[in-house]
Amino acid sequence: MNFGSDTTAPAHPRVLEALARANTGTQPSYGDDAGMSRVRTVLAQTFETEDFDFWLVASGTAANAIALACLCPSTGAILCHREAHIERDERGAPGFFTGGAQLRLVPGFGARIDPAAFAAAVDEHNPGFVHETPVHAVSLTNLTECGTAYQPAEIAAFVRRASGTGFWFHLDGARLGNALVSTGASPAEMSWKAGIDVLTLGLTKTGAMGCEIILLFGKARDKMQELRIRAKRAGHMPAKMRYLSAQAEAMLTGGLWLELAGHANAMAQELAGAFTEAGVDLAYPPDGNEVFALLGAQDGEALKAAGARFYAWPGGSSRFVCSWATSPEEIAVLRAVLNRPQRV
Amino acid sequence: MNFGSDTTAPAHPRVLEALARANTGTQPSYGDDAGMSRVRTVLAQTFETEDFDFWLVASGTAANAIALACLCPSTGAILCHREAHIERDERGAPGFFTGGAQLRLVPGFGARIDPAAFAAAVDEHNPGFVHETPVHAVSLTNLTECGTAYQPAEIAAFVRRASGTGFWFHLDGARLGNALVSTGASPAEMSWKAGIDVLTLGLTKTGAMGCEIILLFGKARDKMQELRIRAKRAGHMPAKMRYLSAQAEAMLTGGLWLELAGHANAMAQELAGAFTEAGVDLAYPPDGNEVFALLGAQDGEALKAAGARFYAWPGGSSRFVCSWATSPEEIAVLRAVLNRPQRV
Amino acid sequence: MNFGSDTTAPAHPRVLEALARANTGTQPSYGDDAGMSRVRTVLAQTFETEDFDFWLVASGTAANAIALACLCPSTGAILCHREAHIERDERGAPGFFTGGAQLRLVPGFGARIDPAAFAAAVDEHNPGFVHETPVHAVSLTNLTECGTAYQPAEIAAFVRRASGTGFWFHLDGARLGNALVSTGASPAEMSWKAGIDVLTLGLTKTGAMGCEIILLFGKARDKMQELRIRAKRAGHMPAKMRYLSAQAEAMLTGGLWLELAGHANAMAQELAGAFTEAGVDLAYPPDGNEVFALLGAQDGEALKAAGARFYAWPGGSSRFVCSWATSPEEIAVLRAVLNRPQRV
Amino acid sequence: MNFGSDTTAPAHPRVLEALARANTGTQPSYGDDAGMSRVRTVLAQTFETEDFDFWLVASGTAANAIALACLCPSTGAILCHREAHIERDERGAPGFFTGGAQLRLVPGFGARIDPAAFAAAVDEHNPGFVHETPVHAVSLTNLTECGTAYQPAEIAAFVRRASGTGFWFHLDGARLGNALVSTGASPAEMSWKAGIDVLTLGLTKTGAMGCEIILLFGKARDKMQELRIRAKRAGHMPAKMRYLSAQAEAMLTGGLWLELAGHANAMAQELAGAFTEAGVDLAYPPDGNEVFALLGAQDGEALKAAGARFYAWPGGSSRFVCSWATSPEEIAVLRAVLNRPQRV
Repeated sequence: MNFGSDTTAPAHPRVLEALARANTGTQPSYGDDAGMSRVRTVLAQTFETEDFDFWLVASGTAANAIALACLCPSTGAILCHREAHIERDERGAPGFFTGGAQLRLVPGFGARIDPAAFAAAVDEHNPGFVHETPVHAVSLTNLTECGTAYQPAEIAAFVRRASGTGFWFHLDGARLGNALVSTGASPAEMSWKAGIDVLTLGLTKTGAMGCEIILLFGKARDKMQELRIRAKRAGHMPAKMRYLSAQAEAMLTGGLWLELAGHANAMAQELAGAFTEAGVDLAYPPDGNEVFALLGAQDGEALKAAGARFYAWPGGSSRFVCSWATSPEEIAVLRAVLNRPQRV
Repeated sequence: MNFGSDTTAPAHPRVLEALARANTGTQPSYGDDAGMSRVRTVLAQTFETEDFDFWLVASGTAANAIALACLCPSTGAILCHREAHIERDERGAPGFFTGGAQLRLVPGFGARIDPAAFAAAVDEHNPGFVHETPVHAVSLTNLTECGTAYQPAEIAAFVRRASGTGFWFHLDGARLGNALVSTGASPAEMSWKAGIDVLTLGLTKTGAMGCEIILLFGKARDKMQELRIRAKRAGHMPAKMRYLSAQAEAMLTGGLWLELAGHANAMAQELAGAFTEAGVDLAYPPDGNEVFALLGAQDGEALKAAGARFYAWPGGSSRFVCSWATSPEEIAVLRAVLNRPQRV
Repeated sequence: MNFGSDTTAPAHPRVLEALARANTGTQPSYGDDAGMSRVRTVLAQTFETEDFDFWLVASGTAANAIALACLCPSTGAILCHREAHIERDERGAPGFFTGGAQLRLVPGFGARIDPAAFAAAVDEHNPGFVHETPVHAVSLTNLTECGTAYQPAEIAAFVRRASGTGFWFHLDGARLGNALVSTGASPAEMSWKAGIDVLTLGLTKTGAMGCEIILLFGKARDKMQELRIRAKRAGHMPAKMRYLSAQAEAMLTGGLWLELAGHANAMAQELAGAFTEAGVDLAYPPDGNEVFALLGAQDGEALKAAGARFYAWPGGSSRFVCSWATSPEEIAVLRAVLNRPQRV
Repeated sequence: MNFGSDTTAPAHPRVLEALARANTGTQPSYGDDAGMSRVRTVLAQTFETEDFDFWLVASGTAANAIALACLCPSTGAILCHREAHIERDERGAPGFFTGGAQLRLVPGFGARIDPAAFAAAVDEHNPGFVHETPVHAVSLTNLTECGTAYQPAEIAAFVRRASGTGFWFHLDGARLGNALVSTGASPAEMSWKAGIDVLTLGLTKTGAMGCEIILLFGKARDKMQELRIRAKRAGHMPAKMRYLSAQAEAMLTGGLWLELAGHANAMAQELAGAFTEAGVDLAYPPDGNEVFALLGAQDGEALKAAGARFYAWPGGSSRFVCSWATSPEEIAVLRAVLNRPQRV
């Protein structure tokens, strides 16, 4: 009954099995282990391309900030949604890693960037004017902070609209698997085929112990050495990287990550249905594994009393997150609480 | 036969067992898991005090840099040995985490700070003079980068010599277990009892998968909230911290870390003996699990041909590192190569 | 006819005379010149207190950023208006000087912070929550970027509303003289008596060559050594500071700065009257030396054709700035253009 | 009798006259004033080339740090002498402006970099090794901190020795005029013809009020936009730049700067002669306007008693600096003190 976050779930058993397999003999340190080449192979299959480089880190905050620091100099700005994780929940990590770059915030319903606001920012772009801080990179999030999803075509439209500006496009994919399952898009369609230069692909929330992949596509591969340098000095080139590559391999092989994301999404659909049937409105369409319910005070108290954990969200809703480990039984308990006869 | 680094070794089986035990049910994220309080208990026993706070990170570079950033402002300097890991091998991490602090380098044989050079730096200390960058923190390393050890009394002498300056004292203990076994000192004697304010206690090289402990003692505990903030924004507050606390608990419980360090030290003594018997001089006294041999070219080639891996070190020696997983058989093979009759 | 900015005006002759007087004999460098104590004396008179420290810099961007870097750590946020100069026009200087602090932007008409938005930010303040970046300092601007003014009581109300938060209050007074003349407030009333901790008092736009004063009041005086350090490392402790102190002394003595600001304000009133009489609406009340006119295209072209220089402003208005050197004749020319009979 | 520093001298009268001439009418702000193009013209004559760009700042610390931040990323190192001004006297400015780059210190007599130590650093250069911080820029100083000079051929030899590394070469010319007069080299020979990419040409110590020129030669011109951006955000793009361009023009026109440096050098030669005749040894050859005398305690006290001001220098000598305003009479007084009969 812990809907607080998908980060409260354990790792999937296959991840632990992979760690145990990796735990034998000596291996080169700092990313030169044999597991890394196996990760490359499965990434190439997953993303249907060889035109990429990658790195593994144990933290989503680090994955985003290292990626962005390669795309935006200390004297530039990163355009993102007002409610983006990099603005709200990472304690200024982009400013720290870039050495002082600014975030240019734009609005939009459900944490999705409003195309008109984006277009206005593009039209104002004037990089030669030294007094203002020009945008160098755009950071989109899919699944968004409000559990909504972008279609690949929507991402491609942003890229097209910024044509000629030189903006790099970053996708924060902390819950990318959930967005892929929901939209039906392939990993390639949602990333490089849509114009994304750098993807931070989260596996931790999906079911790993702690593993995120930074992927550089196409011309962004020129940043690979800088990425390794920035990872190193930030303490994100751990000595025994074999335990990161083992996690990545386990999650990607056979599409385990998408399978787990699919389960989480299905549980969220169940949950959303339970709310709707009980007359509780949702604040945003539940496109992934998160449900934002506009709970009355009575329902909120009843759910807490029944042992459910969830968070109040800015704007007045309550956030419920499902994970690979959420069970239909947990949803059923919530449904029962919502359907109690004494409920007004 | 991999003497390249103790980081090439796998994790000890008890660490993997602990991870498996931790991998059940939901747990609060970001350091609020139940394992953290068990780590606190075992740390209190290990260090014979309750007057401490701590944090766990997966990287030694991060552990040092986060600790130092809490002790030295961007406008100050950190005094350390010219060959310190933070100067040589961390790609400028202290400058990055502090936002531009300088390293004040001092010399000394075998990577041990020369007391006279230290005293001169103390006597020059003039923090009110705005044009120069004053020292705010001293970073010692034990075991040093040359495999030598400080006795607790030597550390205490540095602290006493700096009396009145307000310098904070940091101990980089990436191989602290090896120094403790070698000197016979207790963890308390080597840290807070000697005047150390902040200790980064490495467990990765000793036998963990990736786990370092930052301990704040006494008045340094005032920095705990800042430390959490700096860890967070640098991506060193991973969501599923239960897997860090599980490692720390496994390594500390029953003194496993000291047992493993003791084995590595014993193997290094064997190895040092093999070199000495074969007439190969050592560059530094082998106080821990590292041996720096002044190999002739012929011996070096012969060892490589036999499959031994080791690194050339600045100053002309060759570094051999033993780990918890080094076996007597591996040493025996080296010894046999060194004792071949055709050797000149 | 240059209404582009008050920075296009020359320095007042008395400033040049002061430089010439200062240009004799040797003087201690780096702020220890005799002129600095005379500046202290005239500042004490001007601000009716001895409870202050100060520093001089040649740039308004530097004055703001150095002040803010003393009030907000790299891990914190500075609350300011969405259109504040520090957000829009200083190329990320606060992020650079603080080492990555964020700006928390709030809205409000005419570049004045909306009290309700401010109150909401205060109520959300949760400095113990490590994932978000808490506000450490509030930066107000008077005269604002839209030429409007705060009354001292309005500033005091912000300070009161933030009671208990520990927020520092900074006032960007690049055009403070204009706000003082307009509101009738004394320098003391507009600064420390209203609760301002740190004031950057601009003299450059008012009539100096290049001279801004950072004043620390009351408990903010504890930051004075840090301020000197930050000024030094940023290149804002020039060797021959006598030429900064000479400017400050000349501008403050006898209230020259307020006299010059008064002239600029009077010219702006003339100009505003000319617009209004001609049926041109103003975007904001002209509380100082700036007039934002909602010019039609025809009027704009006619004014440019007549040689007037001014800038288009975000939101659709045109900004006209008067200085100490603006003459009634220049206003008369503009008025004549606006009153031409052929104007539709 | 103030030999404390050439920064204690006033500005030359022609500098003040130039300021007065500049103080009329409106001028575009932020470096677009008419004076800047006149400075360009005189710089082209002075350096015998058109292949350069430039910027003006009021501080030598800023001039060095902004220049170096354009040449070295936050992840790199700057090679300089152990006693360089950027290491010793600028309060960590390079670390601040670069965002954490390291200084790689090399030794050498008289603050001149030892060619063998330089060669060793070049031979160790291994930019692909991610754990260490590679050199990106070399910063030489001429006149050095010990008053010694490099010949152009010596600078060119460093550049040649670094061939193939990609190192940028920066020359800190805070007292370049003194070095030019002493060596007989032309500005072109000492800078771009010798392989210098970026020169910070100091005029303040030579006789300006506060004006330093950053010159980018040849391929370093690609950094000009970055330089303007970094100047802007650091508060080194002052609104009324006409007063900086006026100083630069006055100092360069007709070679005034070299004339003033020549006078200071001549006074230093007089002073050095006075010491030598009196049997006082010099610590370093007096190649410019600075004399480092190995004074006995008795002489030191006698000189102070006679009103002479000078500083004790690391290494045991006393530094005497002559300026454009030093008079033969002042030297004569010192000589008389040194020649008093009661002197032992």
